[in-house]
Amino acid sequence: MRIDLNADCGESYGAWTLGDDDGLLSVVSSANIACGFHAGDPTTLRATCATAVASGVRIGAQVGYADLRGFGRRFIDVPYADLVADVIYQIGALQALARSVGGSVSYVKPHGALYNAIVTHRRQAEAVVEGMRACAPELPALGLPGSVFLAVAADAGLRPVAEAFADRAYTPDGALVPRSQPGAVLHDPDEIAARVLRMLVDGTVQAIDGTEVALAPESVCVHGDTPDAVTVARRLRRVIEGAGGRVVPFA
Amino acid sequence: MRIDLNADCGESYGAWTLGDDDGLLSVVSSANIACGFHAGDPTTLRATCATAVASGVRIGAQVGYADLRGFGRRFIDVPYADLVADVIYQIGALQALARSVGGSVSYVKPHGALYNAIVTHRRQAEAVVEGMRACAPELPALGLPGSVFLAVAADAGLRPVAEAFADRAYTPDGALVPRSQPGAVLHDPDEIAARVLRMLVDGTVQAIDGTEVALAPESVCVHGDTPDAVTVARRLRRVIEGAGGRVVPFA
Amino acid sequence: MRIDLNADCGESYGAWTLGDDDGLLSVVSSANIACGFHAGDPTTLRATCATAVASGVRIGAQVGYADLRGFGRRFIDVPYADLVADVIYQIGALQALARSVGGSVSYVKPHGALYNAIVTHRRQAEAVVEGMRACAPELPALGLPGSVFLAVAADAGLRPVAEAFADRAYTPDGALVPRSQPGAVLHDPDEIAARVLRMLVDGTVQAIDGTEVALAPESVCVHGDTPDAVTVARRLRRVIEGAGGRVVPFA
Amino acid sequence: MRIDLNADCGESYGAWTLGDDDGLLSVVSSANIACGFHAGDPTTLRATCATAVASGVRIGAQVGYADLRGFGRRFIDVPYADLVADVIYQIGALQALARSVGGSVSYVKPHGALYNAIVTHRRQAEAVVEGMRACAPELPALGLPGSVFLAVAADAGLRPVAEAFADRAYTPDGALVPRSQPGAVLHDPDEIAARVLRMLVDGTVQAIDGTEVALAPESVCVHGDTPDAVTVARRLRRVIEGAGGRVVPFA
Repeated sequence: MRIDLNADCGESYGAWTLGDDDGLLSVVSSANIACGFHAGDPTTLRATCATAVASGVRIGAQVGYADLRGFGRRFIDVPYADLVADVIYQIGALQALARSVGGSVSYVKPHGALYNAIVTHRRQAEAVVEGMRACAPELPALGLPGSVFLAVAADAGLRPVAEAFADRAYTPDGALVPRSQPGAVLHDPDEIAARVLRMLVDGTVQAIDGTEVALAPESVCVHGDTPDAVTVARRLRRVIEGAGGRVVPFA
Repeated sequence: MRIDLNADCGESYGAWTLGDDDGLLSVVSSANIACGFHAGDPTTLRATCATAVASGVRIGAQVGYADLRGFGRRFIDVPYADLVADVIYQIGALQALARSVGGSVSYVKPHGALYNAIVTHRRQAEAVVEGMRACAPELPALGLPGSVFLAVAADAGLRPVAEAFADRAYTPDGALVPRSQPGAVLHDPDEIAARVLRMLVDGTVQAIDGTEVALAPESVCVHGDTPDAVTVARRLRRVIEGAGGRVVPFA
Repeated sequence: MRIDLNADCGESYGAWTLGDDDGLLSVVSSANIACGFHAGDPTTLRATCATAVASGVRIGAQVGYADLRGFGRRFIDVPYADLVADVIYQIGALQALARSVGGSVSYVKPHGALYNAIVTHRRQAEAVVEGMRACAPELPALGLPGSVFLAVAADAGLRPVAEAFADRAYTPDGALVPRSQPGAVLHDPDEIAARVLRMLVDGTVQAIDGTEVALAPESVCVHGDTPDAVTVARRLRRVIEGAGGRVVPFA
Repeated sequence: MRIDLNADCGESYGAWTLGDDDGLLSVVSSANIACGFHAGDPTTLRATCATAVASGVRIGAQVGYADLRGFGRRFIDVPYADLVADVIYQIGALQALARSVGGSVSYVKPHGALYNAIVTHRRQAEAVVEGMRACAPELPALGLPGSVFLAVAADAGLRPVAEAFADRAYTPDGALVPRSQPGAVLHDPDEIAARVLRMLVDGTVQAIDGTEVALAPESVCVHGDTPDAVTVARRLRRVIEGAGGRVVPFA
């Protein structure tokens, strides 16, 4: 029973600190490291890559909209050619930073509003995939199961990797309950850990209406921007390991 | 008799166009392509790389200060670690863009105020060299002969490449006459061509006071931001070829 | 027969020049001057304000999305409170620049994708209006007749000013023909001038299907980002004046 | 015995939080609010202005270099005309934001590397003063006693206001001990409070070598970017008030 835990890292910028990267990198197996467009100045990104390398954590390029002000959380109607080039630019920048500290980029995971957009926005999904294919076709694409993004990625010959969210409620058809709805986000570390364990053991999750939904992710996302993010992640890891599981990068 | 001609390219940004990249890329053998910090959005940079590849022109990464407003022409007192990371970030971004269109980055040339600063500013010179060494030690460093930058690069095991400026006057000791002084910039295409030819044939240039100075560059920079830049570059290339020379990338 | 002609100005940025501001400001009566978010660095904006003052042209604040890369032409899903603050920030910045050269801001016109969005996007329209109301309730709002923006502005006690586009085709119900459709943009200066004259004299325009549509704008927008923008604007002004009309700021 | 306490506020940006503005604004009498160039997005700035208004704290415009990445702490060699326009732009933006919440900008204090540069850099000092004079000549200029900035401001007819730093050591000639030297920054709240009290009562401060130096500031700067900033400020205010003094805006 092996599972990958991933979390967003490298989201500080200049004088502004965000998240507990050192804490997260002591728990997760994969780090979605920002690439400077929605967060992460080059110095921060390089230091985060170095910590990931030292911690044996795999580095993923978390590409996003060019929007520091909005932290990449606002949809931007970026034309196809621009989004393709933006994705390439970000991947390449992080590759060089990772290389400079003895590491490498091992996968790509879109961030924030871009992640959400390409669940359904075919044109932007195609642009992200085209960017990946053009500069790093060997990298897997991490995304939401059932998303247009993963479907387009698979069609283009990229390896799609489906992830679940440890702290999010699911609808009966396996989609995420929107954050605007009550109960959409879980906070109890024990409940979160129990749910993830069940995904791994049974390949299911209990939906918000109580029904059982099939969900067998290759990776589980642990959010890093909540105050107790590291606590939740540590608890989750202990529960998995206590049940005989191992937290390792996806295959 | 072989000489490399280099020019700055990829300096448009979004809706703003600057320079005649297509014209320049039909004449020069090496293109100093911006990396998005002082100029050049990813879409522009990718298109410029594609044109360079199609034209058989070598691609260089022109790293600069992060200063779109000032076009990289204002000195910024960037701390060492930040400048190291900025250089890596820029080189990596351009490498991926070049790779995505079938090309590659073959050298690094700093831009504008950074270029000027590291003629004498040892700490920033060391940062640029450390950035290059950390992510792409195989790339030559193009710079001013006698600069601290080229000396530090050589000490670090990088290959230094000295360039001359086709349209700039020189002092008796081989330095550039500051732009603020009369006669610092030459405009007559025939005079410019004749001077460059003499550098190649005799390894000398006539300084502003009439004395003869040794100057045997491996590359000659043709400025791209003047209205008649392409005209001057074409004239120069014709004169070189008329004298039996060849315009080819430096060895 | 009096009409206001307005055009976008101040859209250069740093080393990048865009449009012929001096030419346009010798023809139009109102200048929509960028505010630094989608275009226009402070130096450019101040100089453009100075030229407008010297030319007797009224200054309008052209607020836009914070998106230099996209020139404000990409929709951004900006939250309400952020858009309110962005509008205030931009208006205030231009007010101080105008004041510093003896002028003042006399109206507000949204730019690009923001202009287009608030034709129908009620929440963003309300944010723009709230921003105006909170810092400069005395300024008229220039926009598309029939837009949600002008309706919301009127409801909030701002003065709405409807504009027509000199070079755009209209649908039978008075909307603009989308640029993606053939015939959406007119290029012939004489035809453009004749159409505008008819708006002024008859209060009508011939729609793209040949039917006649009521259209009696208080201002007519002349686009500034086409190569022949100044030529078209000059021709238009000559035709208006030849017919006994006067080009003056809206009341 | 009246003294003004000032502190830097409004330095958060988008998703990134910095400093405890609410805490500081419950203690100080003047808030140096960032203007978006080195820190502070418009939403943050507007909210900070609103809190200042609600707290009866005076608002100052803290103008800085356009350098989010460097938090305005890196010297930038900005040309005169650009710095003039940047200062005007920032003051105007904050004026409108303050106005929108029922407040107004009452003084100008440069930030970070700009503050330090214009202690001696005459050309940049002149640019800041020219920017102030051109758009808001009624505003006092807050700066370092003995600085070129305050001298140029006075010459231009602006009102110069000298400030001291509560937590910084002074040289025997009244200058700040550079941060790079040991003992440059004081940390003990009681010692800090005692020193400030002595400035107010005796008009002196004990220099780092033990000698007594004349120092009678109109305002005292309390740093806001240390973890215990609010604690230090509260202690300082209590000591002043305990000695019969009053913390009020400078005259």
